Amino acid sequence: MSIQRVNSFRNGGKENVGLLGGKGGNLAEMTKVGLPVPLGFTITTEVCREFYRIGCRLPEGLMEEVLAALVELEKEQDREFGHAEHPLLVSVRSGAVTSMPGMMDTILNLGLNDETVEGLAKLTNHRRFAYDCYRRLIQMYGSVVYNIEGVHFERLIQQEKQLVGCLEDQQLSEESLISLVDQFKKLIETKTGRSFPQDVKQQLKGAIEAVFQSWSSPRAKVYRKVHLIPDDQGTAVNVQSMVFGNMGETSGTGVLFTRNPSTGEPVMFGEFLMNAQGEDVVGGTRTPCQIAELKETMPQAYEELSQCAKQLEMQYRDMQDIEFTIENGKLYLLQTRNAKRNAKAALKVATDLVEEGLISKEEALMRIDLQHLNHLLHRSIATDAEHTVMATGLPASPGAACGQVVFTADTADEWKKEGRQVVLVRMETTPEDIHGVIAAEGVITLRGGMTSHAAVIARGMGKPCVCGCETMQMDEEHKQLTGGGIIILEGDWVTIDGSTGQVIPGRLELQEADLPPELMMILSWADEVRTMKVLANADSPLDARKAREFGAEGIGLCRTEHMFLSPARVPIVQQMIMAETESDRQVALNRLLPMQRSDFEDIFREMDGHPVTIRLLDPPLHEFLPNMEELTERLAALPSQGEGAAAERLKLEQMIRRVRDLHESNPMLGQRGCRLGIMFPEIYEMQVEAIFQAVLRCLWDGVIVLPQVMIPLVGHVNELHLLRCMVDQVAEQVLGEEKRYCLYKVGTMIEVPRAALTAGEIARSADFFSFGTNDLTQMTFGYSRDDAEGKFLAHYIEHKLLPNNPFQVLDTEGVGKLIEMAITQGRARNPMLTTSICGEHGGDYESIMFCARIGLDYISCSPYRLPVSRIAAAQAQIIMQSELAQQVEAGLDEEQTAV
Amino acid sequence: MSIQRVNSFRNGGKENVGLLGGKGGNLAEMTKVGLPVPLGFTITTEVCREFYRIGCRLPEGLMEEVLAALVELEKEQDREFGHAEHPLLVSVRSGAVTSMPGMMDTILNLGLNDETVEGLAKLTNHRRFAYDCYRRLIQMYGSVVYNIEGVHFERLIQQEKQLVGCLEDQQLSEESLISLVDQFKKLIETKTGRSFPQDVKQQLKGAIEAVFQSWSSPRAKVYRKVHLIPDDQGTAVNVQSMVFGNMGETSGTGVLFTRNPSTGEPVMFGEFLMNAQGEDVVGGTRTPCQIAELKETMPQAYEELSQCAKQLEMQYRDMQDIEFTIENGKLYLLQTRNAKRNAKAALKVATDLVEEGLISKEEALMRIDLQHLNHLLHRSIATDAEHTVMATGLPASPGAACGQVVFTADTADEWKKEGRQVVLVRMETTPEDIHGVIAAEGVITLRGGMTSHAAVIARGMGKPCVCGCETMQMDEEHKQLTGGGIIILEGDWVTIDGSTGQVIPGRLELQEADLPPELMMILSWADEVRTMKVLANADSPLDARKAREFGAEGIGLCRTEHMFLSPARVPIVQQMIMAETESDRQVALNRLLPMQRSDFEDIFREMDGHPVTIRLLDPPLHEFLPNMEELTERLAALPSQGEGAAAERLKLEQMIRRVRDLHESNPMLGQRGCRLGIMFPEIYEMQVEAIFQAVLRCLWDGVIVLPQVMIPLVGHVNELHLLRCMVDQVAEQVLGEEKRYCLYKVGTMIEVPRAALTAGEIARSADFFSFGTNDLTQMTFGYSRDDAEGKFLAHYIEHKLLPNNPFQVLDTEGVGKLIEMAITQGRARNPMLTTSICGEHGGDYESIMFCARIGLDYISCSPYRLPVSRIAAAQAQIIMQSELAQQVEAGLDEEQTAV
Repeated sequence: MSIQRVNSFRNGGKENVGLLGGKGGNLAEMTKVGLPVPLGFTITTEVCREFYRIGCRLPEGLMEEVLAALVELEKEQDREFGHAEHPLLVSVRSGAVTSMPGMMDTILNLGLNDETVEGLAKLTNHRRFAYDCYRRLIQMYGSVVYNIEGVHFERLIQQEKQLVGCLEDQQLSEESLISLVDQFKKLIETKTGRSFPQDVKQQLKGAIEAVFQSWSSPRAKVYRKVHLIPDDQGTAVNVQSMVFGNMGETSGTGVLFTRNPSTGEPVMFGEFLMNAQGEDVVGGTRTPCQIAELKETMPQAYEELSQCAKQLEMQYRDMQDIEFTIENGKLYLLQTRNAKRNAKAALKVATDLVEEGLISKEEALMRIDLQHLNHLLHRSIATDAEHTVMATGLPASPGAACGQVVFTADTADEWKKEGRQVVLVRMETTPEDIHGVIAAEGVITLRGGMTSHAAVIARGMGKPCVCGCETMQMDEEHKQLTGGGIIILEGDWVTIDGSTGQVIPGRLELQEADLPPELMMILSWADEVRTMKVLANADSPLDARKAREFGAEGIGLCRTEHMFLSPARVPIVQQMIMAETESDRQVALNRLLPMQRSDFEDIFREMDGHPVTIRLLDPPLHEFLPNMEELTERLAALPSQGEGAAAERLKLEQMIRRVRDLHESNPMLGQRGCRLGIMFPEIYEMQVEAIFQAVLRCLWDGVIVLPQVMIPLVGHVNELHLLRCMVDQVAEQVLGEEKRYCLYKVGTMIEVPRAALTAGEIARSADFFSFGTNDLTQMTFGYSRDDAEGKFLAHYIEHKLLPNNPFQVLDTEGVGKLIEMAITQGRARNPMLTTSICGEHGGDYESIMFCARIGLDYISCSPYRLPVSRIAAAQAQIIMQSELAQQVEAGLDEEQTAV
Repeated sequence: MSIQRVNSFRNGGKENVGLLGGKGGNLAEMTKVGLPVPLGFTITTEVCREFYRIGCRLPEGLMEEVLAALVELEKEQDREFGHAEHPLLVSVRSGAVTSMPGMMDTILNLGLNDETVEGLAKLTNHRRFAYDCYRRLIQMYGSVVYNIEGVHFERLIQQEKQLVGCLEDQQLSEESLISLVDQFKKLIETKTGRSFPQDVKQQLKGAIEAVFQSWSSPRAKVYRKVHLIPDDQGTAVNVQSMVFGNMGETSGTGVLFTRNPSTGEPVMFGEFLMNAQGEDVVGGTRTPCQIAELKETMPQAYEELSQCAKQLEMQYRDMQDIEFTIENGKLYLLQTRNAKRNAKAALKVATDLVEEGLISKEEALMRIDLQHLNHLLHRSIATDAEHTVMATGLPASPGAACGQVVFTADTADEWKKEGRQVVLVRMETTPEDIHGVIAAEGVITLRGGMTSHAAVIARGMGKPCVCGCETMQMDEEHKQLTGGGIIILEGDWVTIDGSTGQVIPGRLELQEADLPPELMMILSWADEVRTMKVLANADSPLDARKAREFGAEGIGLCRTEHMFLSPARVPIVQQMIMAETESDRQVALNRLLPMQRSDFEDIFREMDGHPVTIRLLDPPLHEFLPNMEELTERLAALPSQGEGAAAERLKLEQMIRRVRDLHESNPMLGQRGCRLGIMFPEIYEMQVEAIFQAVLRCLWDGVIVLPQVMIPLVGHVNELHLLRCMVDQVAEQVLGEEKRYCLYKVGTMIEVPRAALTAGEIARSADFFSFGTNDLTQMTFGYSRDDAEGKFLAHYIEHKLLPNNPFQVLDTEGVGKLIEMAITQGRARNPMLTTSICGEHGGDYESIMFCARIGLDYISCSPYRLPVSRIAAAQAQIIMQSELAQQVEAGLDEEQTAV
């Protein structure tokens, strides 16, 4: 039977959520499986849309249908709506398709008036109860239908309590309640000039209209905007026979989680109050009891509740959050839904449900909320309490940290050696600050975006970092940081949250990352399911080890420049850059070679048997030199006399000249990547030599090495061809006979739009494509990430000019189209081509979904994101399989239709 | 009959140039049409390739075929090769497919030896002549076959002349020549240990081999590299019966242009020498006579020559460059080819040939060399003499200029007012230098690329400019410029050539641009032929007028920011940028509005009836402020006391703060274009208001206004949609009822790759697409033009990593693919969409060809490039039509084959 616009709970089920709303669907479902649900009916969301379409009134004939539906309730309860002696009472509740907790209205006890209240009193033999219901009705009706602020009613209750000298609501006597009923009615008249309707049908109509109205209340609108719920989804209205938890000491009401929502333990968890209605539990005026106590208070009801909980978990195949009421010892269920839980509980519940045979591994995987999971993987601020925020910058590297503020890398280093925890604050960081970053618990920069030096370094080290705090001011001279009206001096404590970008004064308690055993199980299932490989971005042997721990199937991006940045090496790199001739440069390169070789060797050993993708030097050279401001300051600070000073002056002046030479107006589009390797061939040659020397040493020790040399920033096939020839030549020279034991590959990052557009050509010289989606996004959009994120991008996202930050979520329409083109053209020319993505998008769920859809061979992300990415890849696989199954089914249907 | 590998002149014609070479093909052609050509044959280029393939020797059996072919010559001349009494003499000449003048070798008089020289003497009754021929043969053979440097032979001739006391070669007596023959033979023996071959067949073989060898001489290789001639094209060898211009006073030799190659006048032009062989005319030892004198000297030969010239022009349908010899009064033609001519002559010849009915207008158009033509349109350096070059920068704005060097805009302005010519030299220019640029004849900057401020401004004004002279040093304090070892002080004269980028010390004579009437005729033909419209980039009423003069069919790009740059306006623009609040900004904008309105109004009036495309503000705001260095210098220079100083200090400090705020690491990818218009909506609103206020005033005066509002840098359809709504709203407000008389359009520049990729979406909100190929190239390649051109781009082009500078010639493979995609998608969504290009490529021939092929509606270029672009568009049309005709023909052929 199809869903009626006024639809009995006996019709439909949880599959009709679109029309019945979440609550209505679940009530119908529970009714269907025979659980004790007070009978009722649902007015559909379609009616809500109609309500707004025709100018905020109920459609023609609706009330007649409602009254007809009431008859069923009357029959079942053997009472009558508005009957003086056997009055039926109902509740009217909203029920949106997507849960909007607390956003819309509810009215209980409808059907009471001056006459029926006496009938109820007689029927229940409980006059105080009857008047308590009546005053609740008038109070809710007044606030919901007439928009009278609740505080007015509360004030009258307070007065009454003072008058009779009692403290709690349930201590109010029958007389007080009767008096309150009277006072409430007068309040309504005074405030609105209208009286509380004695006609119960009018009550019902007013309540239904009010619930529909509440869909467009300001707070509901805001909530929908925040949670991206469409305005035309509408709410349903549920009208249900009342059951009473406030009918005395064998009555009560409560909420129940079928398992523990904090730990996932398979033990019922919840609270209840005896002799109370729902709002008393939520309201917080009385302290509820733990659900376990019910076992003693009312063992039979408890047993029944346990049975219901089990049945509902079977029915919904998930942990449930249930509302129940006990009326004179009889249990009723008023609501059920999939329970919210924290990340840790989610893992436990998912694995338990698999063990219990309720769900499959695939279903368990699909239930992991990845954003949620991410919190588990990093240290976080322990308290949920509100805290003062000095500034909110860019969340550049996730996790929380706290320490004493220092303003220079040297101080950071010193203090750390003294055993102190420090947070390094800089305008922006340069390679010369690296020892400070190493020493610090976390980093704050005032300038720079998500890909600034500080951000990249911090992410690589798994260290929290907040970048681009442009609203803060820093006074280096007076060692002082100002923001949000707060002044922080050197040595003051500060806490940062790199997941949200918040900078908080003071020292907050932190909570360690938590990797429960259930995660390992989920990950092993994910690995069974997914076909797309997951590799890691790792730049050092330490990173490589971490990557293996987190289950990386190789290294998808090893950024060799990060090997240039250790304090011992920076001076040699600078010597290389300062070289005036090729032979001078060669001297410095000769010193760097053994260092790079040893790094590569250790990485290969860590990755024994797995591919290691090494990207040759990418960033513009000026990034390895101090910036101009710093150099001129240093020059100015030199003493005018002294032997050392003259030499130092000369050196600084030379460096200033070189920095000026290397200056570019748009370094992002300048001399970097393979352009550098072509202009200064000796740099790449050194790197490739170091790679193959490392390969050779590993081969001697029986390590299985699968090196993949990656040429960055290729825009024209000629660039790749030239450099590939160089790689082949050096490999030949270094490996000699051993070459046949090393199946190395040469490929390129596709990060320039032109490379994607001419991918067919480029694939002729490439064994693999790795999409560098950070740069590809920058150039396809024409956004400099550093500039955009601090400036117009936030505005764009806020004003819906863009659906997402394209640096976080891959833009499938534009950038994605380029990637698809490149893959199609590339594979057409080179069927052996492997394809992958190694930008930050490799750790983003939606982007991973896209990668799986277009059939990439693997994704690569930072080690700390590997668990998330492995699960995401599995989820993508599952979704695709189910879509495929649906298509096959649709195909079969079509065939049948055709026949 | 197909071409033989040894092919008689009686077989084939000019269509066989690929196998016969240019000379061979033309000799066969002339033979075919009955012109007096000494008989001969050609050894094909295929033999040359074979020669190199088999290791630099003649293929098996070739000499037998050569000797067989000689028989025909012997018969015709009734002489015999090597015969003691009736010796046949031949010349052996190279003849490449593409002319390589002077690059390869020639040997004359082959067939002479100690015996036959006496036969020739008897036969001609002229023993001195015979020995003259013989010594020439030995001399040429020695240098060509044995590689003996010419100077050795010349020294012996000099000694002989001194010995007998004569000055010129022809004064040498028979005895002297006999003696020289002897001396030459000995010279060969001394130098090579081999003797001059008396066997005439051996002579011939050696000569043929030597010509083939000369194909790979170092100078020939270099020439081919420079002129992009493929190495495997090979040269042909022409063996031809000798005729003698040195047989006495009724003999002679000369070269003839059928028209004047400097002016194009239809009068024969050339030189000849009596009693001489070819090398005497070229060698410069004797002064040749003007061709007109031949009319008196040998009227019959002259008359015959005139006839031949006419016939050849008919045959080749173009002006010819002919070599001829007169032997005993009889005229022989030895070579003909299409004559080289200067740009002015090219125009005259082309129009004359059309008038004479020899060629069609389309053919005339196809013969215009556009690079050539470009020289006519700008002032140039008059002398061809070599001059010292101080530095070569980027050719940023074409044309030549000279003036006295000044180092500040203020000095430029003052000196100009004193009536002096100045050239402004700056490290780089800023908007504050604008009055200096206006005052100067030309501009030099030491930094910055083809799109730097100076370059853009200068091109807009049609003023010569050389940018990025990075090899020069400037000492502003001592007012001194150094480069190439030369020091220039303020006030010294300098000449610049903005077409080549040269900076030349001193004052060179300049030659004005020359627009002959023939150009106007050619342009009118071009306009008849082309279907693609040509519009202009014009930013001011003055530009607009110039554009109309040069035939623009509207304005394709009016850059409103250039209106912000006049000295009177810059302070207001700065006030607008410095505004802290929207209302402060509004104050400044209110002052700018009437200025913009008046500019727009004047431009609309100039363009009455033609579309005017106005691009809203595009560059980042910091471009309108002085740069940081300048501001800090100004601040440092402020007196520490004084009332004005404090206020000025405050202002400067504010400006410094703002410049710092606006600083971007990659401004090219930063807050500019529509991003600016979205972040500061009041700026665009002011501009649009000014546009429509101007429209309104024009409408009142009956001017037909077709405004097209162009939104720059759109990357997502939402940006365009938002701004389009704003434009429509403002238009409505300003125009009111008059709106129906103004068919305005709103469109966008497609300059961000993402816009091209999502063009289907964007076309929903756009009436037109204008491809901003400068930016599109930057982002598609990931090249910052400013950085790339001074750095790696030159290296890339030199080393063939890129075929062209993609900023000059549109990259059809990558950028072009994007453009094609965008057009296809855009038109599919919006069939009314008009498409165009407005980058610098709109003035480049190859790029225009591409635009025509993909069916753009129009191109837009700077006014000074309009003539070139109009012709280019016509040429593209003609080529496309002819290709279409060929396809149709091929289709018909196929059909016939099928039948």
